[in-house]
Amino acid sequence: MPKVSFRGLAMPESPIRKLVPYAEIAKRRGLEVLHLNIGQPDIETPLEARKAVNNYNESVFEYSHSAGNESYRKALAQYYNQISEGITFEHILVTTGGSEALSFAFTSCLNPDDEVIIPEPFYANYNSFAMASGINVVPIASSIKDGFALPSIDSFEEKITNKTKAILICNPGNPTGYLYSKSELQKLTQIVKKHDLFLFADEVYREFCYDDKEHYSLLNLSDIEENVVVIDSVSKRYSMCGVRIGAMISRNIQILQAALKLAQARLSPPLLGQIASEAALGVSSSYFEDVNKEYVQRRNVLVDGLNEIEGVFCPIPSGAFYAVAQLPVKDSEHFCQWILEHFEFEGSTVMMAPLAGFYSSPGMGQNEVRLAYVLEIEKLKKAIKCLREALEVYKLEFNTQ
Amino acid sequence: MPKVSFRGLAMPESPIRKLVPYAEIAKRRGLEVLHLNIGQPDIETPLEARKAVNNYNESVFEYSHSAGNESYRKALAQYYNQISEGITFEHILVTTGGSEALSFAFTSCLNPDDEVIIPEPFYANYNSFAMASGINVVPIASSIKDGFALPSIDSFEEKITNKTKAILICNPGNPTGYLYSKSELQKLTQIVKKHDLFLFADEVYREFCYDDKEHYSLLNLSDIEENVVVIDSVSKRYSMCGVRIGAMISRNIQILQAALKLAQARLSPPLLGQIASEAALGVSSSYFEDVNKEYVQRRNVLVDGLNEIEGVFCPIPSGAFYAVAQLPVKDSEHFCQWILEHFEFEGSTVMMAPLAGFYSSPGMGQNEVRLAYVLEIEKLKKAIKCLREALEVYKLEFNTQ
Repeated sequence: MPKVSFRGLAMPESPIRKLVPYAEIAKRRGLEVLHLNIGQPDIETPLEARKAVNNYNESVFEYSHSAGNESYRKALAQYYNQISEGITFEHILVTTGGSEALSFAFTSCLNPDDEVIIPEPFYANYNSFAMASGINVVPIASSIKDGFALPSIDSFEEKITNKTKAILICNPGNPTGYLYSKSELQKLTQIVKKHDLFLFADEVYREFCYDDKEHYSLLNLSDIEENVVVIDSVSKRYSMCGVRIGAMISRNIQILQAALKLAQARLSPPLLGQIASEAALGVSSSYFEDVNKEYVQRRNVLVDGLNEIEGVFCPIPSGAFYAVAQLPVKDSEHFCQWILEHFEFEGSTVMMAPLAGFYSSPGMGQNEVRLAYVLEIEKLKKAIKCLREALEVYKLEFNTQ
Repeated sequence: MPKVSFRGLAMPESPIRKLVPYAEIAKRRGLEVLHLNIGQPDIETPLEARKAVNNYNESVFEYSHSAGNESYRKALAQYYNQISEGITFEHILVTTGGSEALSFAFTSCLNPDDEVIIPEPFYANYNSFAMASGINVVPIASSIKDGFALPSIDSFEEKITNKTKAILICNPGNPTGYLYSKSELQKLTQIVKKHDLFLFADEVYREFCYDDKEHYSLLNLSDIEENVVVIDSVSKRYSMCGVRIGAMISRNIQILQAALKLAQARLSPPLLGQIASEAALGVSSSYFEDVNKEYVQRRNVLVDGLNEIEGVFCPIPSGAFYAVAQLPVKDSEHFCQWILEHFEFEGSTVMMAPLAGFYSSPGMGQNEVRLAYVLEIEKLKKAIKCLREALEVYKLEFNTQ
């Protein structure tokens, strides 16, 4: 029997999804599982998008253009123009989710064995895309103590070698919820310019910024226009993760041309998702205000509730819909599995994502978890109560303190 | 300005799509472009599939399971069980088109620099997926003279090195339309078993076999159950290329587990496409009979018409909806571009795919083209007339004979 490839063996399991079998055990035990593990919002997909799909009446579901339907790309150009003037549809490649946009960026810009520097903790699947592309992730630690602010420029300089080709950030961050300031991004600009690196930003949570803080897009950085590649997706923005539509945006036409060849190989991004996505661009201006109001309430309930639990520390995130919390446990993966397998509180248990898988450095994040506040407030309150009780029981059972 | 990667530069342009700018020139000249270049059928998407999408009424378009919706996988298992007993939903991973299934197969089974042997001409994008995965394609020439039958087993033996990990076939073939016989596949079995290779088959055209010939799936090969990986897609089967749904099927659970990690990284296949695909499985048994009747008529019109043109040779394909023709020209790419840019006949011109891009060996297929018979018969007849006239003019203009 022929063997699985090295990459197939080494590819990390998703830390977000690997506990799924234990959640299934909990469900078989008759429990309600409160899913704080995955960024699948419960917010309704905009009616405009759903109607567009329900009314789609072409008799053949055809391939679209490999770069995406031109009408969608032109509508997207208007959206990005509001962020940064001069973006045209030719700067935009429509992809199958943000995932594919990042894969295309890695493969178009980096050679095998090249290095990309990423502040950790970072979205765990970056590791998988890097491995599939044959490139190496070089992590720089950020710390829960300062809410995961951008590491110092010196610490970036220390990591740069002749293999370094790019820096990747997620802004606002998954899993941290941290929102980089304009001045942090300008510091990054200097180092990117000095070493002529690519600067990738995953901005899929762009619209989710709180407390009157504003998102500053990489598309607005001057001096390094051709170094910047923005990764985007409609999944979270319009609460329609299933449509699998993203985009890669850059003023560097050569990179887009290389990525287009990758796009041609896979023929086209999903047609029906593009129909939904184009329609979603027509949501009223109050849409994000309403959604953000809801997320802020949830965030406050979650973060306040967590910080009231003894031994728990959770910095307040300014964006996205995740929070990272430090728990009074030695091994959060063990705890996350245990709470699903062995604990219940008033008929419920909680599913969280252990944070170790969001670090590339071994041994980091052992007592941290990511929580997505994508549930309604009553469920979040229930989850916090459950977590508080569980930590009590766990402490007694495993003597963690 | 940072540079495009080597892969980004070397990645081949799609030979099927690279002439698109010239087709746009033809359209600007006011011409109707008869598209024989791309496998985008004009057959209607089954009403069942379209209705399922139009009636989909979940209020959130959520991620599906990374391996695909379980209900769809179970329905697919029934479909594959009719082909080969014992296939369960656990042998099936739902993918974003056949493209992703092949990418997953390459990455799960082969290490960088490993080799996959493919009879050429082959579907051009195999090259792109191989390059993106860092593996090497080793071609074995098949010949238009015998309709692109399987090359001899000796010629496979000659190509096998310690880097060879897999053989890939497309059955029935794109671009050749050749349908491998049971005995040809049994010969392949011997060599696969002897060298313990993976055997990949792209069977996306499985349902399109003509003249009472039957498709023999790799899933039915005994003795090498764990070596076999089948690549599938609903794109052509149900004339819904735009939904981007495929599948990877194997009895080798270790390979599926490795591929599942890749699938988890990209989160989920398209939701709406899965809704359409699951519904399409419910088409009546007469569906493929009707469609195949239509394709056989078109094939006969196209192939007979081509063979009546002086200097043209086109073997009769037994499956899929492509034909390869040898034209009386030196450089079919030049001819295909010229006919779009400079020729017209009764207000039309023809777009074809030059075959050189379907070969991996340089210099092969220079006078060959692929034609997809995905247009209605009247348009095919018009295309043949146009091609005949064009070849006359081209011969005079470029002295090709």
